[in-house]
Amino acid sequence: MEEVFEKSDFAKWERYYRAAFFNSLGGFKSLNLLASQNIAGQHNLGLFFSVSHIGANEALLGLIFRPHTVPRHSLENLRAGYATLNAVHPDILAQAHQASANYSVEDSEFEATGLSPEFRDFPAPFVAESKIKMGIKYREEHLIKANQTILVVASIEKVILEKGLILEDGLIDHSLANSVAVNGLDSYYTTQRLKRFSYPRPGEDLSENPW
Amino acid sequence: MEEVFEKSDFAKWERYYRAAFFNSLGGFKSLNLLASQNIAGQHNLGLFFSVSHIGANEALLGLIFRPHTVPRHSLENLRAGYATLNAVHPDILAQAHQASANYSVEDSEFEATGLSPEFRDFPAPFVAESKIKMGIKYREEHLIKANQTILVVASIEKVILEKGLILEDGLIDHSLANSVAVNGLDSYYTTQRLKRFSYPRPGEDLSENPW
Repeated sequence: MEEVFEKSDFAKWERYYRAAFFNSLGGFKSLNLLASQNIAGQHNLGLFFSVSHIGANEALLGLIFRPHTVPRHSLENLRAGYATLNAVHPDILAQAHQASANYSVEDSEFEATGLSPEFRDFPAPFVAESKIKMGIKYREEHLIKANQTILVVASIEKVILEKGLILEDGLIDHSLANSVAVNGLDSYYTTQRLKRFSYPRPGEDLSENPW
Repeated sequence: MEEVFEKSDFAKWERYYRAAFFNSLGGFKSLNLLASQNIAGQHNLGLFFSVSHIGANEALLGLIFRPHTVPRHSLENLRAGYATLNAVHPDILAQAHQASANYSVEDSEFEATGLSPEFRDFPAPFVAESKIKMGIKYREEHLIKANQTILVVASIEKVILEKGLILEDGLIDHSLANSVAVNGLDSYYTTQRLKRFSYPRPGEDLSENPW
């Protein structure tokens, strides 16, 4: 049994129903806290669902800023140069979710949520409680004409990991850090290892790789 | 205990180690099969890790094409107009992983993997075995100057879901479809429900929402 929806159906849906539907349709996403500071030294912390891998050499990632849903402070601070991304685990999940509330620029989401800024020879604060942290630098941005959303491309400048998370081949296994995955805007999941596979080649059988 | 890596360290790493490290650093991603056909009617199927939410009204998503790792056939077919995205669950995971092998344009990854093309009044085939499928239409693209990666923005034109996956508020709960999450290039996970939270507001306590 199945349900089929056409574009003409989408337009008829109630706004929040449609937002929940399309935010979840694409599947699981990673959950990171984006931390930054402005030139006055005020800290900003926001919850970020949209980190894309762009390249490994040079190490680059993409961040999608949707003008109507993400406070502009994070974007303005990142445009000025630097920010950090900090993976979320269950012990800090409620604080991370609360950090996405619409605080004014004078309020520190660190203070409001009880998360701790950590300064590590980098021009933006890290989140002390996170186990997987990276410092990023603004590189370029693209305006998506269809809806004025902005893609920011940033380079990865520094990585701070809790010990024991990197497997032999370089994989950072987020399940060892108990990193949370998100579906939609408010629904959080833990993960369990299923399988690793060998590199696929035409005409060859796959084998399972050990963890 | 922690490990700290600087940009100067990244450059010294062996190439595959670095790729595994940075492909996994950002956290969990969704896993979709991108299906398309060219003007000669030849089908193409590829594994796709990089679907970003761009908008809900109009419904838009972003796909990152990395020139050196993704066969160009998918990109060329999508540029010509249409493709489909089909969520991967454990029963079709090995076939989905195999679909990312470097087949030549004359080979059908559907035939090679045993997955079934399904035609549903849309200009590209769906993957019959998938439980969450969408038909997408090319809208615009952006060339990322830093490494020649391409962001394609597409609109969602049609959605086909197995019955029972949509929660009351519109959330498509991928855990009900047992959708797979991926970390890095070859490491797959299942998920378990953790928590849903209420909409966060400054100065208000969060409450848990029911599933």
